[in-house]
Amino acid sequence: MTTVPENLLDNLCIVMIQTSHPGNIGSAARAMKTMGISDLRLVQPNRFHSPETRALASGADDILDHARHFDTLKAALADCQTVIGTSARSERTLSWPQLNARECGMLVAEHLSQQKIALVFGRERSGLTNEELEYCQYLAHIPMAFDFFSLNIAAAIQLFCYECRMATRTPPEKQDRITEEIPATTEALEGFYQHLETTLVESRYLDPENPRLLMRRIRRLFGRAAPTKNEVSMLRGMLSAFQGRKFQRRSS
Amino acid sequence: MTTVPENLLDNLCIVMIQTSHPGNIGSAARAMKTMGISDLRLVQPNRFHSPETRALASGADDILDHARHFDTLKAALADCQTVIGTSARSERTLSWPQLNARECGMLVAEHLSQQKIALVFGRERSGLTNEELEYCQYLAHIPMAFDFFSLNIAAAIQLFCYECRMATRTPPEKQDRITEEIPATTEALEGFYQHLETTLVESRYLDPENPRLLMRRIRRLFGRAAPTKNEVSMLRGMLSAFQGRKFQRRSS
Repeated sequence: MTTVPENLLDNLCIVMIQTSHPGNIGSAARAMKTMGISDLRLVQPNRFHSPETRALASGADDILDHARHFDTLKAALADCQTVIGTSARSERTLSWPQLNARECGMLVAEHLSQQKIALVFGRERSGLTNEELEYCQYLAHIPMAFDFFSLNIAAAIQLFCYECRMATRTPPEKQDRITEEIPATTEALEGFYQHLETTLVESRYLDPENPRLLMRRIRRLFGRAAPTKNEVSMLRGMLSAFQGRKFQRRSS
Repeated sequence: MTTVPENLLDNLCIVMIQTSHPGNIGSAARAMKTMGISDLRLVQPNRFHSPETRALASGADDILDHARHFDTLKAALADCQTVIGTSARSERTLSWPQLNARECGMLVAEHLSQQKIALVFGRERSGLTNEELEYCQYLAHIPMAFDFFSLNIAAAIQLFCYECRMATRTPPEKQDRITEEIPATTEALEGFYQHLETTLVESRYLDPENPRLLMRRIRRLFGRAAPTKNEVSMLRGMLSAFQGRKFQRRSS
């Protein structure tokens, strides 16, 4: 269960994927520090140890020292209940729920007392891959003057962290969520998607050669619902029952 | 007299005083460009022509090319009616009217159609001198987590420009849901719940004597997701597959 930290923003983490320039990691640490956000997670950075990293962190060494390194995005998100991907542009062919940076801050502020939330930033040039987007329940962007232009990644992190801080400054009213309703972690959700995929393949609804699009549609649907821990248990119980029925029929 | 430009933000200029690092000027140009602000004025920069300036501008060369150089702040502000100084901290011994970055954006948006407005940024380390502050009618700051820490100057410019843009932009049109995404009717949803209940009874997950609570939990989960028409079809297709009705797949 997620504990409510003294500083709400301790429940927010910044995930940077395959960052090319170590200086950008340093600048990101500084940007986070100014806004009181300290949990930095790095997925396969190109280079981390560089004089530039420290120089641009400009005193935010504690954030660099405590930054955690991961081999996969999945591992980095394991304990997070809400995952928000960031994108340079607002439109995508498959439409995730879209937030601008301000709406993103408000959403984060609303859920931060009950959830671990991740803000995910992709590569400097190419952003997030479609596979990485599948872990996200929301897609957030910074409204810009030109579509063909984009912010430096550290500037984008600065801005999202600022919006999250601004939104959490005024404490949101306590939501009386009943204890049953602990949001599922990414790990739990991924377990469910895997179980569903297996069951769909077994029942021949899904062609294992080409699962991609169907599974994406399923992720979009359940991502919007943001299932709780208990709901994921319920869904998996159903799947097991569906699987069991098939076995019964085979054996009979 | 100030003319009302087609782009309101053309009436806003960014003034940088004695900037030490040419890279910061480049980053500032990029930050301005992303927000549609183009009038950059430099007062005695330490160095302007540097490969770093161009590299960090990352395509905002037009802003660098049109940047104007001044010997004094007074000269840089000659045509401006409102001057807002920026400060790393919110308190000063001499009390100017104080604005946070959001209030600053709103003030700029309010006056931009009638006035030339300058946002003034001081030196990287020491900010604005008291003499320079005398040109300012307002003092603006970015609310931060720690008083002893400050934003990189380009990050601060990014953030102020963002707030000015957010405050001046007209509300965006409602996103048109793509045609695929027609929300399911109650009838379609009820058909799905009925189908699910039947399948759950068949697989012995659900006790037909007492279906009430489980079905309510399911309704809460899917109700939050607000499934589309096509998603309901997809879900029902899965249920049919779980039931073993292979004809469903063949016909699709």
